[in-house]
Amino acid sequence: MADVSKEGGEGTMGEEEAAAGKKFSKKEAAKLERQRKRQEHAAAAALSAVSIDETDPLASNYGDVPLIELQSKAVTGRKWTEVADLTEELKDQVVLIRGRAQTIRAVGKKMAFLVVREKGFTVQCVLTVTPDVLSGQMVKYAAALSKESIIDVEGVVSVPKDPIKGASQQVEVQVRKLYCVSKAIPILPINIEDAARSDAEIEKAEQAGEKLVRVNQDTRLNNRFLDLRTPANQAIFRVQCQVGTLFRQFLLSEGCIEIHTPKLIPGSSEGGSAVFKLEYKGQPACLAQSPQLHKQMAICADFGRVFEIGPVFRAEDSFTHRHLCEFVGLDVEMEIKEHYSEVMDVVDRLFVSMFDSINQNCKKELDAIGRQYPFEPLKYLPKTLRLTFEEGIQILKEAGVEVDPLGDLNTETERKLGQLVFEKYGTEFYILHRYPLAVRPFYTMPCYDNPAYSNSFDVFIRGEEIISGAQRVHVPEFLAQRAESCGIDVRTISTYIDSFRCGAPTHGGFGVGLERVVMLYCALNNVRKTSLFPRDPQRLAP
Amino acid sequence: MADVSKEGGEGTMGEEEAAAGKKFSKKEAAKLERQRKRQEHAAAAALSAVSIDETDPLASNYGDVPLIELQSKAVTGRKWTEVADLTEELKDQVVLIRGRAQTIRAVGKKMAFLVVREKGFTVQCVLTVTPDVLSGQMVKYAAALSKESIIDVEGVVSVPKDPIKGASQQVEVQVRKLYCVSKAIPILPINIEDAARSDAEIEKAEQAGEKLVRVNQDTRLNNRFLDLRTPANQAIFRVQCQVGTLFRQFLLSEGCIEIHTPKLIPGSSEGGSAVFKLEYKGQPACLAQSPQLHKQMAICADFGRVFEIGPVFRAEDSFTHRHLCEFVGLDVEMEIKEHYSEVMDVVDRLFVSMFDSINQNCKKELDAIGRQYPFEPLKYLPKTLRLTFEEGIQILKEAGVEVDPLGDLNTETERKLGQLVFEKYGTEFYILHRYPLAVRPFYTMPCYDNPAYSNSFDVFIRGEEIISGAQRVHVPEFLAQRAESCGIDVRTISTYIDSFRCGAPTHGGFGVGLERVVMLYCALNNVRKTSLFPRDPQRLAP
Repeated sequence: MADVSKEGGEGTMGEEEAAAGKKFSKKEAAKLERQRKRQEHAAAAALSAVSIDETDPLASNYGDVPLIELQSKAVTGRKWTEVADLTEELKDQVVLIRGRAQTIRAVGKKMAFLVVREKGFTVQCVLTVTPDVLSGQMVKYAAALSKESIIDVEGVVSVPKDPIKGASQQVEVQVRKLYCVSKAIPILPINIEDAARSDAEIEKAEQAGEKLVRVNQDTRLNNRFLDLRTPANQAIFRVQCQVGTLFRQFLLSEGCIEIHTPKLIPGSSEGGSAVFKLEYKGQPACLAQSPQLHKQMAICADFGRVFEIGPVFRAEDSFTHRHLCEFVGLDVEMEIKEHYSEVMDVVDRLFVSMFDSINQNCKKELDAIGRQYPFEPLKYLPKTLRLTFEEGIQILKEAGVEVDPLGDLNTETERKLGQLVFEKYGTEFYILHRYPLAVRPFYTMPCYDNPAYSNSFDVFIRGEEIISGAQRVHVPEFLAQRAESCGIDVRTISTYIDSFRCGAPTHGGFGVGLERVVMLYCALNNVRKTSLFPRDPQRLAP
Repeated sequence: MADVSKEGGEGTMGEEEAAAGKKFSKKEAAKLERQRKRQEHAAAAALSAVSIDETDPLASNYGDVPLIELQSKAVTGRKWTEVADLTEELKDQVVLIRGRAQTIRAVGKKMAFLVVREKGFTVQCVLTVTPDVLSGQMVKYAAALSKESIIDVEGVVSVPKDPIKGASQQVEVQVRKLYCVSKAIPILPINIEDAARSDAEIEKAEQAGEKLVRVNQDTRLNNRFLDLRTPANQAIFRVQCQVGTLFRQFLLSEGCIEIHTPKLIPGSSEGGSAVFKLEYKGQPACLAQSPQLHKQMAICADFGRVFEIGPVFRAEDSFTHRHLCEFVGLDVEMEIKEHYSEVMDVVDRLFVSMFDSINQNCKKELDAIGRQYPFEPLKYLPKTLRLTFEEGIQILKEAGVEVDPLGDLNTETERKLGQLVFEKYGTEFYILHRYPLAVRPFYTMPCYDNPAYSNSFDVFIRGEEIISGAQRVHVPEFLAQRAESCGIDVRTISTYIDSFRCGAPTHGGFGVGLERVVMLYCALNNVRKTSLFPRDPQRLAP
């Protein structure tokens, strides 16, 4: 896709790109004329695919919209109704809808049923041959539409006696006019109905001896723009949008400022294998693995409390269900007056209010997700449980799980602890704090009373770590000392240390991955399901 | 800074990073002990810098806070008042504030004035030697504080008769207690007062024969965390945050979904010089120059209307006041029913409501910016003026400016047109649409009535292009044809073209740079002033 961006990429900084096009002059009229002809040819080609019967006196009621009509020819003032808004209140009214032909079924030559989908909502549209209104040719035209084509349907809303099973809306549209705005190819890489099916449905069908298509993850991701059309995916990214919105709203209401830190940072060979390296105008550079340095600098720059929502890059070779090479980081950094519990307080209130709001505002979306991927609602307390790391170790010990009291927890132990905490406290969302110093980054502030521990915390959802946070060392001399203790060459981080020499507030912060929040909140089994276009060690496209 | 991220970078995806630390065992107690000693030593070192007179019976009222007290030792329940909130209503009350010692001035041995700054707001604090309350040694201690050190001040609010010139708050604090939380080095790379001065002040002083320090841009940017402490910079990034917030709020209220598209995309050698290239797990990759492809795919995925706020990367060698190598793109893409004017309608309402809100909600910030960088408020109409490109050419022609009627406008001509439009219509914000097709990217939809023109637009603020938008070609065959006409090898963009083959909505969108919006709204002369940590061909740090 390099050429697309090269050609312009929406010129926000882009007069050059626009200028990259050639300049016209009157001499080039001939070339223009050729272009005009080509354009007409394309329009004609689009039309030629239509098999309209010219002898049908009702031919103007249906057909493919020619390209020229779609080139902003006119503003007609017509109003389209959204499929989601089609309810009984509109009974007997004429509506115009635009959506996709999800399924098309002709019943003999006199009737056809079209399920039209828009943004995951579906409505059944009925074509019935009626003299002087709807011709047999029109039913034929409808029956020949390819699935996923975009169509304009004009018709009258009716309310059938029996509930409708094959569509989300409980009304029908008695079609009068039908136009195809954009044709899909006849054979799609993925059938949306196949992609939208739950495992349970497939298994049930199998038990009944019927073999249904199971769309595997790679096929889905290779054709992501199709896969995303399923109701569950439509819902997942609406929930993701809500999570981002709630995160932001809460933090703004707490006096935080949203910042944007650079993703291109200086990088030397010491960067390690988890860093994407590149050349920046002759200098070695890399992609930021977190906004850590810059968000701390923003605190040293007196912004008080800051947050950022932006991409984070990890070149790790992790092939797990929870790792991506690029994900959306939700990062917070804030001055603290006295204690790192001030940071945990923000985490607590932020997430509890976020969960409350999602439950309240995203009912339809959670239902849609649950229909394909059934899950139990997250259990959390109004005031988030906080356990110290030592208490966590103790709980594990009592359950017979022996772990290094000053080591880190592995994924399996975290899951076990989550289970034990749930049994004991009835919550799947909790904070574990006072981690051993040795398992945290060098810039973590040690505990005042025991340097084996640190003023840090992790937060867990359904037994998986989701947030990591801490008080930071703000004293430059001590920071240098801590770096040295961790075997880091202090000279390589002098910029970082120097930013604390001109008066540094006591501060702390935390970071969380947007995709993981959505994944774990909805108990999905793979972070690729909650990333719009996921990037992992084997996937860089689409 | 590679090592900082290596060590953890706040483990949102990070159990590995955390585990990168070594595991402790009981055997390592000796090492722990050494660490404990070092930590005590660091604390002692911090203390040793303090020249507290142990014989002063009032010595507990002042001094440097030892490190251990700043390691989350206790939650005392003390309440700090923000400097911005210090008003006459608090007269005679005891307050505790935390801020920076901006200026320190001793008057003899019995009195000292401290200006304390917090988030750009300042208050004058007065130390007066008083028996049994405030000692001469305490005045000496205060006088010896280094500028920009962070201090806790406890004192009584008083209201002086005369207005206070040297601080933003019109009350004083009669100091009782004074503690230094974090010391700044005695000689700072930048003096905040110097950095905060307007050109007018410097020139006025020069005329009076006084030479004031003028901090140049490179010095500012090299020490950005200091430079950002000036009231104007504090305000600029609060306005930037507001612009992002208003952009988002408006679009969410219009039914848009916020999306996050990948910044790492497949890239071949054809990418051109404006692309940052890198290796992605053995594959050639590059950094997205815009979310163009992916936001269009999101439209093909039925999201209806989407927007994104995220970094955009341009490797161009542009050394102008308005170009950056990394900036924050505000991008919108939306289905259109009939006409690209639907996109312009969104631009119109979005920006007018944004300007209205900034004027209303950011008065203090705009004042702070104006004090250092005086500017006239932006003049805009409640309904944004729209001119066709042909009309724009005509206006220029009438003013004697001859330009190619089918070419692009250069920066100079744009500025001239902005001036003429302002004279004629009284607005500094307007839309120019129906651009010549040849100067737009290949995916721009040509006009239905004349293929020399396109369904596209640019938007201008104060004579500079700020937004670029258009209807896109959604018909795959026509798109391929357009690409060919522009000399693009269709095979290199097959993924892009294929995403329109499964039914593509008619759609359009636009993009704008956050930094440019703030720069032009506030009539600042350089986009580096509105980028938190700017990146240009010569700057990759801090």
